[in-house]
Amino acid sequence: MAKQNIYDNEVFFEGYRKLREKESNANDLFEIPALFSLLPDLKDKAILDLGCGFGEHCKGFIEKGASKVVGIDISEKMLEVAKAENSDPKITYLNMPMEDLETIDEKFDVVVSSLAIHYVEDFTGLIKNIYNLLNPGGVFVYSQENPINTTHSTGERWTRDENGEKLYVNLSNYGIEGERESVWFVDNVKKYHRMFSTIVNTIVDGGLTIEKMIEPLPTEELLEKYPDQRDLFHKPDFLLIRASRKV
Amino acid sequence: MAKQNIYDNEVFFEGYRKLREKESNANDLFEIPALFSLLPDLKDKAILDLGCGFGEHCKGFIEKGASKVVGIDISEKMLEVAKAENSDPKITYLNMPMEDLETIDEKFDVVVSSLAIHYVEDFTGLIKNIYNLLNPGGVFVYSQENPINTTHSTGERWTRDENGEKLYVNLSNYGIEGERESVWFVDNVKKYHRMFSTIVNTIVDGGLTIEKMIEPLPTEELLEKYPDQRDLFHKPDFLLIRASRKV
Repeated sequence: MAKQNIYDNEVFFEGYRKLREKESNANDLFEIPALFSLLPDLKDKAILDLGCGFGEHCKGFIEKGASKVVGIDISEKMLEVAKAENSDPKITYLNMPMEDLETIDEKFDVVVSSLAIHYVEDFTGLIKNIYNLLNPGGVFVYSQENPINTTHSTGERWTRDENGEKLYVNLSNYGIEGERESVWFVDNVKKYHRMFSTIVNTIVDGGLTIEKMIEPLPTEELLEKYPDQRDLFHKPDFLLIRASRKV
Repeated sequence: MAKQNIYDNEVFFEGYRKLREKESNANDLFEIPALFSLLPDLKDKAILDLGCGFGEHCKGFIEKGASKVVGIDISEKMLEVAKAENSDPKITYLNMPMEDLETIDEKFDVVVSSLAIHYVEDFTGLIKNIYNLLNPGGVFVYSQENPINTTHSTGERWTRDENGEKLYVNLSNYGIEGERESVWFVDNVKKYHRMFSTIVNTIVDGGLTIEKMIEPLPTEELLEKYPDQRDLFHKPDFLLIRASRKV
């Protein structure tokens, strides 16, 4: 099974780093607030962060009272930044792919993952591992690209009018799941497209109960500052889910 | 709150009747098999069918062992056909809109609805009523148009190449929920678009647990007989959900 480590590519790493430093990037505006809104009270909780990247969230969880955070990432370069910029005695950073979760011999109250799971081919195996890593009553909160996004691979994403205004999203192959190659700073970034129904069924069949789903959209207030974000009403960029292990 | 009774319109009624009589209509090929696949064992169960139309499903539930079926529909014309063609001592047909469910003073083991709920404006109120009508352990199974479908209102649904082959679904306004007017035999058939996340959250917030979701796609075998159905891989027509009342 492929374990993609695109973040250790030099070109990708620098491009990604600059994107995240932009003041109004989509993560800051939509994905991060939605992700944190789904988290339970973290006081005295043990947290596992899958694809923790630069470790900002790990640090954030400690600030919200977590007693222990384990952050894993496949990219050593990302973890170097995490250790330099977001270290804490309560945080452990582990360099490992998400596919190797069964090697972790601890239980957590919260498993969280920010925009990493659409890179994982075996979602069923991942959910099984997450279930096993959660304490009863534990919560899984994650974000991924919206399925209306992940289905896209080649060709133009939008149909525009004569003035260049976006009219439609060019949606195709939504029902054909699996690998998509896309260009994001470098060629051949591999993502895995899954339909809404497959995502829901995989989580439910893995023993977790779906509690909430968010497809973030801009508020009126945000649109005044960032009018381009109205395009999200055609197609939300993200999908976030909270699910729990009942017993 | 609008209670739309388009099925009592003469033109609509005849058009719809002819569509359902076609041998390879989308309901027979995809929606009905998926709906029945989600049903529990109906032996000795009490069933409520919301928007029962011609009553074929009500009759089918009796054939599968149900002890009692109540079918409701807003259209008197539809129920006249139901009573003539699909009557049974164990079936009661009631002429009422789905919005008036709180007037029913019984409990059911299964509440089912086939392609009717996208006509209902108040989904939250509907789910509340369904929860109250279900026995603990009871199951709600329903089908609706897929949200990728319901978002469409005016304009061309597809972008085609120079040979007329379908390239893309023209997706727009997915994030703008609410009324859509469409032409289906007659003008101004009103449907209500809701995002996947809103559908899931409304069901969960109403106290039901999501158990399974289906977006039906054609099998290889079916494609050999009906090659045009490959378009469904761009955009499934239907969404089906099974949810249960645990306590």
